[in-house]
Amino acid sequence: MTETTPGWLTPDELESARARMPILYVEAVPVRVDDNGEVTSIGLLLRIGPDGTVSRTVVSGRVLHHERVRDALLRHLEKDLGPVALPRIPTSLQPFTVAEYFPTVGVTPFHDPRQHAVSLAYIVPVTGDCRPRQDALDLVWFSPEEASSPAVLGEMPGGHGALLKQALAHVGRLS
Amino acid sequence: MTETTPGWLTPDELESARARMPILYVEAVPVRVDDNGEVTSIGLLLRIGPDGTVSRTVVSGRVLHHERVRDALLRHLEKDLGPVALPRIPTSLQPFTVAEYFPTVGVTPFHDPRQHAVSLAYIVPVTGDCRPRQDALDLVWFSPEEASSPAVLGEMPGGHGALLKQALAHVGRLS
Amino acid sequence: MTETTPGWLTPDELESARARMPILYVEAVPVRVDDNGEVTSIGLLLRIGPDGTVSRTVVSGRVLHHERVRDALLRHLEKDLGPVALPRIPTSLQPFTVAEYFPTVGVTPFHDPRQHAVSLAYIVPVTGDCRPRQDALDLVWFSPEEASSPAVLGEMPGGHGALLKQALAHVGRLS
Amino acid sequence: MTETTPGWLTPDELESARARMPILYVEAVPVRVDDNGEVTSIGLLLRIGPDGTVSRTVVSGRVLHHERVRDALLRHLEKDLGPVALPRIPTSLQPFTVAEYFPTVGVTPFHDPRQHAVSLAYIVPVTGDCRPRQDALDLVWFSPEEASSPAVLGEMPGGHGALLKQALAHVGRLS
Repeated sequence: MTETTPGWLTPDELESARARMPILYVEAVPVRVDDNGEVTSIGLLLRIGPDGTVSRTVVSGRVLHHERVRDALLRHLEKDLGPVALPRIPTSLQPFTVAEYFPTVGVTPFHDPRQHAVSLAYIVPVTGDCRPRQDALDLVWFSPEEASSPAVLGEMPGGHGALLKQALAHVGRLS
Repeated sequence: MTETTPGWLTPDELESARARMPILYVEAVPVRVDDNGEVTSIGLLLRIGPDGTVSRTVVSGRVLHHERVRDALLRHLEKDLGPVALPRIPTSLQPFTVAEYFPTVGVTPFHDPRQHAVSLAYIVPVTGDCRPRQDALDLVWFSPEEASSPAVLGEMPGGHGALLKQALAHVGRLS
Repeated sequence: MTETTPGWLTPDELESARARMPILYVEAVPVRVDDNGEVTSIGLLLRIGPDGTVSRTVVSGRVLHHERVRDALLRHLEKDLGPVALPRIPTSLQPFTVAEYFPTVGVTPFHDPRQHAVSLAYIVPVTGDCRPRQDALDLVWFSPEEASSPAVLGEMPGGHGALLKQALAHVGRLS
Repeated sequence: MTETTPGWLTPDELESARARMPILYVEAVPVRVDDNGEVTSIGLLLRIGPDGTVSRTVVSGRVLHHERVRDALLRHLEKDLGPVALPRIPTSLQPFTVAEYFPTVGVTPFHDPRQHAVSLAYIVPVTGDCRPRQDALDLVWFSPEEASSPAVLGEMPGGHGALLKQALAHVGRLS
């Protein structure tokens, strides 16, 4: 989970907050759908970490002070997929799951060494052109079968593989 | 709930089936959304019944034999809103509610004198031009506040008013 | 999916209906939970088919004419788990998924050679003593890890393995 | 929304955090259910504010650092309803809604003058004996019809009336 827009907190303040309370995140699984709404492919961001590790993630980021969840979703989708991805933000705030990232391994399937983050997770169809920005190298589209393969899931650290499987299950495409 | 495409059943067979088993329906609440996915208006079909009664309903209809739920949704949306409504069928089949219409009044909030119908209900954003066809006179767009007013709810028979309130609640727009 | 209480239809009538319209089912995944609501084990029914095949299934059955979904759930849970299983029927009818069983293989992940069945699927904690009745040999409890193993999933025909994975994903226990 | 267990933050630190980031809450609507899972009554806490105002609320409170959502739910239910309420924490973390309380009136239907709080809301059946503690005077059970009456909703400040209506809609009991 990467957050590059520090918002209203200085880095020191964010560091301090992260040690003391759960931080609210949103996550969006970008998908392509056909006319019947069925998910045909899933978009994963390819990132290279500070240590050179290659990893795949979904769109994610913090909710800022005085920002609505749906505005945070749109902001992070535009940040990660570019300005013409045309995401379809859900009509309902009911997430398909709530992912709890703990700094300690094993409390939940999710892990974030930096913080205790609680993430509202949504499926978001995108219909436009995706141009990854910032620290993401590329956005790669996978079929549902490819996305749930061990090869792809193995490149999703911190429990993002489990989150992806939950997303695929929710849309009826987990094989 | 009106069904004008009898599908694989003759009228007699449909009559017989309706007396003996629950009939599976889908219902779609057509909405307009802004860029953040927030519902800005709700579309209700204006119908005049055989006895001259004016009523407002959402899109609804039977699921046919060997038809997927998402295909039935798209078919009924096209039937009721025309071919260029551009509905966004949900990615997940998880409905926001299941409405049970009983031929007997009072078992549930929902009532259909013709049959026991069980309906999977979805919110469906439409972005195109809606041209009601068949027996619907008109499609009228209401703000969430108008849609939940006693005047509008009072014109929705058979529990459709309750369904509309559930839909508004699900998208956080029930005032 | 086994239905042994034919209800208001004679076998011939049921046969005829099955060839002409989707049949409404409910499915319940029985689980044990701890005090925090976390699923600790999943109960699967062990059945032996007419041809001697061993298979594992969840609780399932038809919704009858003039029967509410929650009454059908309770009836099938009592039929399959006995009278003192003490199931906790969900407060909301919103299912975690809708499973569509087609007589044709490949339309969806679900398959039922006898019929087109559409099933509302729920997670149901049971706290009492389960005593399988009728055609089920036994109810076996599995940990979430065991339940999602290839060995167990391989014994769940007709797409019930996919349904079980969706259930585990919904409760955050799919590893 | 009242939080009386400050956890790992001193009052000053909490004050500071509240001015800078959204604070994660859980809310639980306590209900009584019948054997079929249908909600028969809703429990509301009666509180008297520092200024003598009488108000009714549901169970709510902060999620602490390194605390799971389901543990926070159980902790606040025990805090507000006493140790023998026997709450049935949901098996899935998918909330029926996410309520966003803003310090500014009108951004959403929810308002909290102290902070920007984002709350995961759940329906929680309780089967035991409820003995309100701390600052709550009493827990009063209402029928679904009473709970959605203007008299009761009018005593629920900050948008809690809207939350209650969403809860009733979700369980099919909003009249």
